[in-house]
Order: sequence, then C-alpha cells, then structure tokens
Amino acid sequence: MPPLADDALLPTLADSVRPDEDGVHILDRRAFPFQQHWVHARTVDDVATAIEDMVTQSSGPYFAVLWGMVLAARDAAHRPDPHTHMHHAAARLVRTRPTNDQPRIATEHVLRATADCAAADLPGIAETAAREAEREYRDRSARMGRAAADLLDDDARVLTHCWGDLYLVGLVHAAQQQGKHLSFVCTETRPYLQGARLTAHTLAELDVPTTLVTDAMPAALLRAGDIDALVTASDRISMDGHVINKIGTLQLAVAAHTFGVPFHALCHAPDPDSPTGADVPIEFRDGDEVLHALGHRTASPLVEGRYPAFDVTDPRFVTTVVTDRGAYPPGDLAGYWTAQPQQHRQGTPQ
Amino acid sequence: MPPLADDALLPTLADSVRPDEDGVHILDRRAFPFQQHWVHARTVDDVATAIEDMVTQSSGPYFAVLWGMVLAARDAAHRPDPHTHMHHAAARLVRTRPTNDQPRIATEHVLRATADCAAADLPGIAETAAREAEREYRDRSARMGRAAADLLDDDARVLTHCWGDLYLVGLVHAAQQQGKHLSFVCTETRPYLQGARLTAHTLAELDVPTTLVTDAMPAALLRAGDIDALVTASDRISMDGHVINKIGTLQLAVAAHTFGVPFHALCHAPDPDSPTGADVPIEFRDGDEVLHALGHRTASPLVEGRYPAFDVTDPRFVTTVVTDRGAYPPGDLAGYWTAQPQQHRQGTPQ
Repeated sequence: MPPLADDALLPTLADSVRPDEDGVHILDRRAFPFQQHWVHARTVDDVATAIEDMVTQSSGPYFAVLWGMVLAARDAAHRPDPHTHMHHAAARLVRTRPTNDQPRIATEHVLRATADCAAADLPGIAETAAREAEREYRDRSARMGRAAADLLDDDARVLTHCWGDLYLVGLVHAAQQQGKHLSFVCTETRPYLQGARLTAHTLAELDVPTTLVTDAMPAALLRAGDIDALVTASDRISMDGHVINKIGTLQLAVAAHTFGVPFHALCHAPDPDSPTGADVPIEFRDGDEVLHALGHRTASPLVEGRYPAFDVTDPRFVTTVVTDRGAYPPGDLAGYWTAQPQQHRQGTPQ
Repeated sequence: MPPLADDALLPTLADSVRPDEDGVHILDRRAFPFQQHWVHARTVDDVATAIEDMVTQSSGPYFAVLWGMVLAARDAAHRPDPHTHMHHAAARLVRTRPTNDQPRIATEHVLRATADCAAADLPGIAETAAREAEREYRDRSARMGRAAADLLDDDARVLTHCWGDLYLVGLVHAAQQQGKHLSFVCTETRPYLQGARLTAHTLAELDVPTTLVTDAMPAALLRAGDIDALVTASDRISMDGHVINKIGTLQLAVAAHTFGVPFHALCHAPDPDSPTGADVPIEFRDGDEVLHALGHRTASPLVEGRYPAFDVTDPRFVTTVVTDRGAYPPGDLAGYWTAQPQQHRQGTPQ
C-alpha cells in the first residue's frame, strides 16, 4: 500500500504518484476507478516500465520520473561513478515517451540540481529537487485554475473532454474557493474512456454535479443552450494559437463556436518551440484500440480502425488560452513570453 | 434456422426478417455480428415482444409487423370474428413502438388490403399485401439510393453515422451499378455501437473499403480533407428541412459545414405531419446506457449518464435531402408533395 496522502481532501488521481523509502507507488489508471491498484516501483527500470505500460498518463509521468530520479540518486550514492549512473537513469526514463517532453523536463530538473554535489549528498538533494518541481507544477496548475475560474459565471455549466488532471482539479478548487457552483458535462472519450473513468470520478470526488454523455452528444446540448462554456486541458498550444489536445477537442470547439459558446483552453504556457499548429506532429496509435472497449471487442470482425490520438483546433475556434500567468486571446500568445523571461518552459502534460 | 435468403447477394442485415410457414424469423441485432442468432416468432405476441426487446430496429420492425399481420391472418381465418381478431393483433403490434410510425403504417397496409375479404381468404390476401409492402419499401430505398449515388463523385470518401439500413444498402448498390468506387468512414455510434457492429459489418459484406473511428474523430478527418461527403439516413425530416436522426448527426453536420463538406440526408419522403423541427419530440432513453458498452460498465460508479436518443440538425447545415423522388434542397421540400399526390406517406424508419 502507498503512504497516506499528504492532503486527504485531494481527489485520488491528484495524488497518484507517492514516494516512500523503498520506491514509488503509482496508481494504475488503466483499471481506475473499477480497481484501485497501486504499482510499487522499486527501481528506475520499474518506473520506466510502468510509464511505458501506461500505468500512469497525463501529469502522472512527470511526477513518476521526478521520483524515479530520486531512486536513481539513492542507488548512485553507493556507486563509483554516481553522476554517470544518474545520466544513464535519466536516459532510460526519457525513452519511455519519445513524443512527450515531460520526462525529459523532469530528469533535467533533477540533473541540474545534483550536477555538482558529492555522492553522499545525492539522495537528499535529488529529493529536495523533486519536491520543489512537484510543488511548482501544482502551484502553476493552481494559478492557471484561478485564471480559468475567473472566466466562468457563478453557476456555469461546463462541458469538458478527456481528462484535464491537475488542470481540472485546479479549476474546480479555484471555483470552489470563489464560491462558484459549477456543474460539468463530460464526454466519455473513446476509446480509452478517460472522461467516463477519470474525469467523471474525480469530479464526483470533488462534489461537483456531473453528467456523462457519449462523444457524439455535446452539439445537441450546445444547440439547446445547456452549456455555458467548453473548457479543456491541452497537450500543447502553438505560439499562433492552435490547440493540440485529445482527439475530439476540435469537434467540440467547432460545435461550441457554431452555437456561440466560448472555448477556454488550459495550458501552463504556450510552447515557444512550436511556432505554428503545423509544427506539432500528430501521433497515430494502434487502430485496434477503436475496435475495443476495456478489452472487450465492440466492432465487427471485418472492419479496421483508425486512431489519431490528438487533433489540432484552429485559433478561430478558441476564445481564450488560460495560462499560469492569466488568460490570453489565441492571437496574442507572444505576450506570455514577453511578460517575463522563459523560466517556465516546462510546458504542459501530454 | 430461417429459410434461405431470396437474394444471396444481399448483406445479412438487409434480409433479416424472413417469414416461413409457421412463423417469422427475426435476426437478433443486439448480438450481431458477434452472434448470428435468429428469434423464431410463432405468434403475433412473439413478434411484438421481439420488437419491444429491441431484437430488431431501424427498418426491421416495419417488416416484422407486416409478417406479424400475416400470422394474425392465418390465426383469424379459423375464428368466429376474424376481422376483430385482425384489429386486436394490429393494436398489439402498434403498441410496441409508441413513438415510431412504422408499425402503425405496416398494420394499416394489411388491414386495408384484407378489410372486405372472407375469412378463408385472409391468409393469402394478407401475405400478398405484406409482400407488396416489403417490395415497395425496398424499391423506394433503391430509388433513393440512386438519387444519392448521383450526388457522389466516382471515388468519394463518405462519412456516415449510426446505421442506415436499407437506405445505406440502396446507396451502395446504386453506386456499384454506376461503377463508382466509394469508401466509407463510419462512426462507432455509442452507446449501442450501431456503426461499429451493423454499419461496418454490412459495408464489409458489400465489399466497400471501410474504416471505423470513434464518434469524436470525424472533425479532424474533415479538417484534413479526408472526407468528400457526409451521408446519413434520417428518422424524420420536417417540412422546413430539419433532419431528425440518431444523436451525433448534428455534431457531424456542423463539422462538415464548417470545413465545406456537403451533408446529404436520406429519407424516403419528408414528413407532412411535421411542419417544423420543433414539432418532433426527442426521446430520452435510460442514461445508464451511456455508462456501459455491450453490458460492461465503462464509467465511474459515481456518475450519472444522459441519453438523448436523437438530435435535430438545422437546415443551414444540410446540403441535400435525398428522397425516393430525387434530391431536394432542405428549403424546398414542399416540392416533394406537390410533385405527386401523397401516396407515399409511410415515411422512413425510426
């Protein structure tokens, strides 16, 4: 069993990577919430394998890699060439998600903090760095959540898609602190059902009234005037205002735009390394996923599936980009980086 | 086992209600294509129960009720008050689908044909009437299919939603006769997965290249230029051009409109009893359906589902209404009924 949560009021998924003295406990999101099973990763390789096997996703790998680097530091302290060992561990962890920057950013944070320290100090310094990075990620999500809550009416009915992880939790906490009574409609988000499993469950844990619909239903709700705002997280936002997020976001944004409902896209920061939407490659996953639900075949044996994992929403369908420095129109994201130096390039979860 | 198909080239679902000497065989669409199980309905009540239990849907109940009336006629021929028996049977069959006109239309067709006949002639006359109505329904679907195929390019990539039944088969047959090489993308159509199970399977049986996507993916394909036309059946089309069809049609129509792709809605005839889209009540089904896939729970135990079964697509998102008398713009459907007298009010499958 993992150690108890630091904050008992957090929903389960907002505290789902927990370090202890002999490893890292990682909640298995593949089976959540039907089973609450924790993987106890005792080595760097255990952590890497858990990420590769999709035990955790969204913000999870960032935290798992931070604590994986602490495991590496504990091990390195007893080795003849501790810093080489740290770099080998980092390389192993970065390889887990070739198209996602979060593991790289997490390893670099710990490597930077430990670069010049003596072997015996490695474990303590790595742990301090990991705690600092985790707190910073949570603080940025909370600031972004407050900026998003500011945009919503007191009783806003919010449509969301897929799973916003700490972004969603930050928004809900901020709205609750502001005394607002949000309600949510969430899409089930086939094929992995993140909305049906993760988002719906977390919102219920947060005491937010929530209704689940299939991915095809939102336009009818928007047409009927049942939705006040579309709010989603984003995997990346290019500097020209294209929102890259879970497949289906574009379809909802187009429908919201058509029926005059604003779309607010959440992201710690726009990505300075992606000048345009065309700069972001779209990952295709195995089309077989579309033919199954939680392991059960749902489609004819005669058909093939197609699974673009993300889509690109044009800035004309985006009302606001909400960052940890406040809200920006999608056509003016340069303001985010000119406001302050690029201290927060770590970006957003994939 | 049911009798062999009259036309071995028809896909399974296009010949899924088959009469024989002691009943009607109805293919169980709930388990199709994973199991090909036929329900042998020997009485009017068996037929009614099969329809109520959703053994068949779409065009299926129309054919099942026609042949249920033939079973009634065989029974009535030996009774003291045969026509009263026929009317009781009709009432039982009409009650199966209170919001769907097809059972009523089918019973009225047989009652009209048998109204004045002697008891001994009832079975033969009812069977002739049923065969005539079935052939007429198929002929109308074929004419509508030809009109739809005329609108598509030789190698059109067609997006469709849910299950078009004989409308879809009519379109594909017509395109094949015209030498066109259509390919299809079909949506899985949660929660019942008609697209994944029925449409994808039938298109494969018809040798049409087909790809399955989730309900959230089409906008991305439309944006990428991968789709040439959206084509769906419709449960009803009001005289002012609103298309009432399976939930999700509106969302696809909005996306197609946004990215400049035409939407052709298929329907034997616009409904003269529905002057406007607002005249058509939208049925809400049990929200629990949204929480399951083929009987397996897919959502958090803490959430509730919402299931509007149909949606209404405004005429501004509809390019063409394709009928058995050809194609009409959605703003000029009166032309359908002024062209000829109202001999074809039987409308469309629900």
